[in-house]
Amino acid sequence: MAELSSKEQKKLEKLATMRHSMAHVMAAGVLKLFPEAKIAIGPAIENGFYYDFDLPRSLSEEDLEVISENMKGIIRENHPIEREEVSRAKALELFADQPYKVELINELPEDEVISLYHLGDFTDLCRGPHVEDTSRLNPQAFKLLSIAGAYWRGDEKRPMLQRIYATAFGDPKLLKEHLDHLEELKKRDHRRIGKEQDLFSLHEDAGPGLVYWHPKGGRMRVAVENFWREEHYKNGYEIVFTPHVGKSWLWETSGHLDFYKESMYNPMEMDKSDYYCKPMNCPFHIMIYNEGKKSYRDLPCRWAELGTVYRYEKSGTLHGLTRVRGFTQDDAHIICTPDQMDGEITEVLRFSLYMLKSFGFDNISAYLSTRPEGKCVGDVSDWESAQEALKKAIEKEGLEYGIDEGGGAFYGPKIDLKVKDSMGREWQLSTIQFDFNLPERFNMTFVDTDGREKRPFMVHRAQLGSLDRFFGVMIENYGGAFPVWLSPVQAQVIPVGHNFDDYADGVWKKLRAAGIRAEKDLGDDRMNAKIREAQTQKIPYMFVLGANEQEEGKVSIRTRTGEQINGLTLDEAIALVQEKIAAKAMP
Amino acid sequence: MAELSSKEQKKLEKLATMRHSMAHVMAAGVLKLFPEAKIAIGPAIENGFYYDFDLPRSLSEEDLEVISENMKGIIRENHPIEREEVSRAKALELFADQPYKVELINELPEDEVISLYHLGDFTDLCRGPHVEDTSRLNPQAFKLLSIAGAYWRGDEKRPMLQRIYATAFGDPKLLKEHLDHLEELKKRDHRRIGKEQDLFSLHEDAGPGLVYWHPKGGRMRVAVENFWREEHYKNGYEIVFTPHVGKSWLWETSGHLDFYKESMYNPMEMDKSDYYCKPMNCPFHIMIYNEGKKSYRDLPCRWAELGTVYRYEKSGTLHGLTRVRGFTQDDAHIICTPDQMDGEITEVLRFSLYMLKSFGFDNISAYLSTRPEGKCVGDVSDWESAQEALKKAIEKEGLEYGIDEGGGAFYGPKIDLKVKDSMGREWQLSTIQFDFNLPERFNMTFVDTDGREKRPFMVHRAQLGSLDRFFGVMIENYGGAFPVWLSPVQAQVIPVGHNFDDYADGVWKKLRAAGIRAEKDLGDDRMNAKIREAQTQKIPYMFVLGANEQEEGKVSIRTRTGEQINGLTLDEAIALVQEKIAAKAMP
Repeated sequence: MAELSSKEQKKLEKLATMRHSMAHVMAAGVLKLFPEAKIAIGPAIENGFYYDFDLPRSLSEEDLEVISENMKGIIRENHPIEREEVSRAKALELFADQPYKVELINELPEDEVISLYHLGDFTDLCRGPHVEDTSRLNPQAFKLLSIAGAYWRGDEKRPMLQRIYATAFGDPKLLKEHLDHLEELKKRDHRRIGKEQDLFSLHEDAGPGLVYWHPKGGRMRVAVENFWREEHYKNGYEIVFTPHVGKSWLWETSGHLDFYKESMYNPMEMDKSDYYCKPMNCPFHIMIYNEGKKSYRDLPCRWAELGTVYRYEKSGTLHGLTRVRGFTQDDAHIICTPDQMDGEITEVLRFSLYMLKSFGFDNISAYLSTRPEGKCVGDVSDWESAQEALKKAIEKEGLEYGIDEGGGAFYGPKIDLKVKDSMGREWQLSTIQFDFNLPERFNMTFVDTDGREKRPFMVHRAQLGSLDRFFGVMIENYGGAFPVWLSPVQAQVIPVGHNFDDYADGVWKKLRAAGIRAEKDLGDDRMNAKIREAQTQKIPYMFVLGANEQEEGKVSIRTRTGEQINGLTLDEAIALVQEKIAAKAMP
Repeated sequence: MAELSSKEQKKLEKLATMRHSMAHVMAAGVLKLFPEAKIAIGPAIENGFYYDFDLPRSLSEEDLEVISENMKGIIRENHPIEREEVSRAKALELFADQPYKVELINELPEDEVISLYHLGDFTDLCRGPHVEDTSRLNPQAFKLLSIAGAYWRGDEKRPMLQRIYATAFGDPKLLKEHLDHLEELKKRDHRRIGKEQDLFSLHEDAGPGLVYWHPKGGRMRVAVENFWREEHYKNGYEIVFTPHVGKSWLWETSGHLDFYKESMYNPMEMDKSDYYCKPMNCPFHIMIYNEGKKSYRDLPCRWAELGTVYRYEKSGTLHGLTRVRGFTQDDAHIICTPDQMDGEITEVLRFSLYMLKSFGFDNISAYLSTRPEGKCVGDVSDWESAQEALKKAIEKEGLEYGIDEGGGAFYGPKIDLKVKDSMGREWQLSTIQFDFNLPERFNMTFVDTDGREKRPFMVHRAQLGSLDRFFGVMIENYGGAFPVWLSPVQAQVIPVGHNFDDYADGVWKKLRAAGIRAEKDLGDDRMNAKIREAQTQKIPYMFVLGANEQEEGKVSIRTRTGEQINGLTLDEAIALVQEKIAAKAMP
């Protein structure tokens, strides 16, 4: 985590101050439209600001325009923004008509200085700071973006307010860039592309946060899983399969029922026992480990599973594929002797980086979380050697990294790997997590060379994190235009008219026989419409077949990026596509 | 289902009579040892007979020997077995001391003739028939096999009795054959081989009937799944993935909560809804189908999933992998227009046979179940055309088949495919099941060529049935000596001494790089012990490497069947193994 320079830090603070002042301007603009509005709070946020209001009616898009115009007027009137410090009594009197402000004032500590900021007629309870006057704000460089419901103080038992989100910059050019970025994000929204390409669906009525992978999403998942399994075997892992449910004693033993229960699905009672859907795979892998005595000769165990787990997330926090209730972890547990630990950690990090890069994520940074203060399990010396191993592995790979001192869980230190996607967003994908807790709780042992029973080291590891979330991240990263090996349809066969349907059918069959995911479009649409449709679907290759191709027994290819390659034999064309598949490349 | 000839039928009846008489002899033998024994019932069963007793103490193996000797004595005393018909009062008087018999007598209908059979001192309440006298029984051709607990009348609220199982034939040679067969079955018991080869485990304490696939079982499952996925894509199927849990309305809509609830896991209550672990995948595939309007152009849909389902079976009925609570179905749903139905059924049957044969099951017969009397869903004409399609498909494949007239479920006719394993046992694996119920209940439609919304046909299909059960069947069929492509370890590299460890390591690496599941045995055991161990593990190929091999840079192979192939180059050896893998052959 490269730290910000003090210059960058200052710039960010200046932007935040400007945005905070814009929030006051927005509140003033809202009060012009709704003089009876009750105002709540309005902070600066990343790229902009918001303000929460209690209004007599629901806001419309048209209201936003009026408010926006009001704001421009206020800015142009060039008001100073002035601070005043007042007594509590004075503050309460001033805001007598504003119950949210009254509540805030009453909760301020006795010795707190109460400050107000005046902007023309508008006064807000505020710590500041603010810009000196509205001439510092650019009326051409902000935009009201959206309206959302928000509970007062985030408490669902308090009133639901209306929040206006806005963005603001110092310069209209930067605003435009940001709006373009937002537009691009919207286009890349995995929920939208998921529908457009018919990849997956979620069904509130059958259970929120549970993903249904449609045939085309299924093809992508099978491609990912096949690659994953193959690489795991190549890298010396074994693949196991375990149940999705288990009796409560598993979670009592693991401790999850003590500290994780509210993130678990509720139990099913059967045969006088409580069964739980698993929120993680670990206890199941441990059951396999503990089946029969293990010796140092059996270690290291590297056991991986595409294990589907279920976790209870509040339905309000769910979001498409990236925040769900059921997901498939690409989980593995490494169980090894203390001597093997260093080498295993180096390998697991190398393998994880290889895996992420295989999917086109080259911009990766690491975050190391170390022993927290307070109650931890495990010997301090084990923590230290584990942290040392993690650090050495990161440094060996030459990764940029940050250290979150004391940020580890109570049961062990970890590395998180984050990738930066094509839109500049960071996603945490891989985790390499030591666990000093479960080996103890499940009494895992191995017989060492000296004949003594010892406790093995145990490391949890996920590379992609969750297949479902990773799918969402990939869709947005690629905007639906996937590398050829992942594309649900790799080639669309397009005869330019029905005369060529038979020829197209033959080409299609040969592509399929060559293991290429090909479809054919024998519909009545004209060629251009067929090509447009294939482009909309982001299909990497179109095999456009007309009289020339049929006569010569050849094919012409167009790529989704508009490239044309004419006059290839079918074998040459197949070789070209297969080469891109093998190279995990874009067309 | 070839029907039995009347001659065969007679022979079976004669055997059953003999075995039933043996049961009386056993009861007489037990009463000699325990005069106070209370006797329950003792029928003939397949290959033998049993009798249930209420005894003053638990039986031991030694008791069985004494009883067996008693029985031989009784047989040799050459008693007639004589029928007597008596009044109810007389019967009750006679059995005053035998409460189980009294209960049976009291439950006999008013007009029933009450008959007894006398054998020396021993008298039993019995309908008969029996052999004339004990000279018809062969004291050298029976064996007491085992003791088991059995509730009186199978009711867990009634007393637990002791059941003695026995086998009996007309001829000691047949007895020996049968005992050998039992011995072989015991050796092939998948639970035993599962432990010996470390393939899987079950854990009563974490939830009965839930399978944990260990690394070696996992390799086999991955091999099966990879093949399954590849073949499904080749055969025009798509693969989908759906959640393991869903809200109750899915099962209310499907009707399962009406007629299947007690076979489901109990619900989890969350957010004021009941969630259930899925007992089948159908409603989930239908949710995908119903996402967006479908046209005739979208059909047929052939959607397959390796879907793990959970069903509540009484814990007493669970058995290893073959009767479990959680299992992964190789499920598919075919959704098609009425016009496509015939062709789809033909294809699905052909594909299912291909799949079974790929695993070495060549002895396959079909069972067609047709429309039952009483309440059914669906038009009679649809039932008839569906049954016709199923029949035509069977006949096209030239399969032996039986018809279970009226034996179908209320929602549609079906074909079951049963395979005969190497021990002569039949296992029902594949099912092709029409469903006229769910398309109606979930209001599935497609827009036909005429622009009208119509109801599609829907067929459920499983080929292997459940991966878990299929795994159990395969283990027993092959007695753990799997075809090379399925073997968890395909080649064991065995240096004859530590001098050759390096050479062995190089060979092992090349085998792995060639995609062969190879292990190396670098332990301190002598060569013969290493070979024996590999044979016990039923590893198809052993690469035995000593001075000759190292000098010449060659390898010597032994197969698990004892074949030896010396002086191959490593490339030749790899080609040999790969060829067997590709051919799905034995070594």
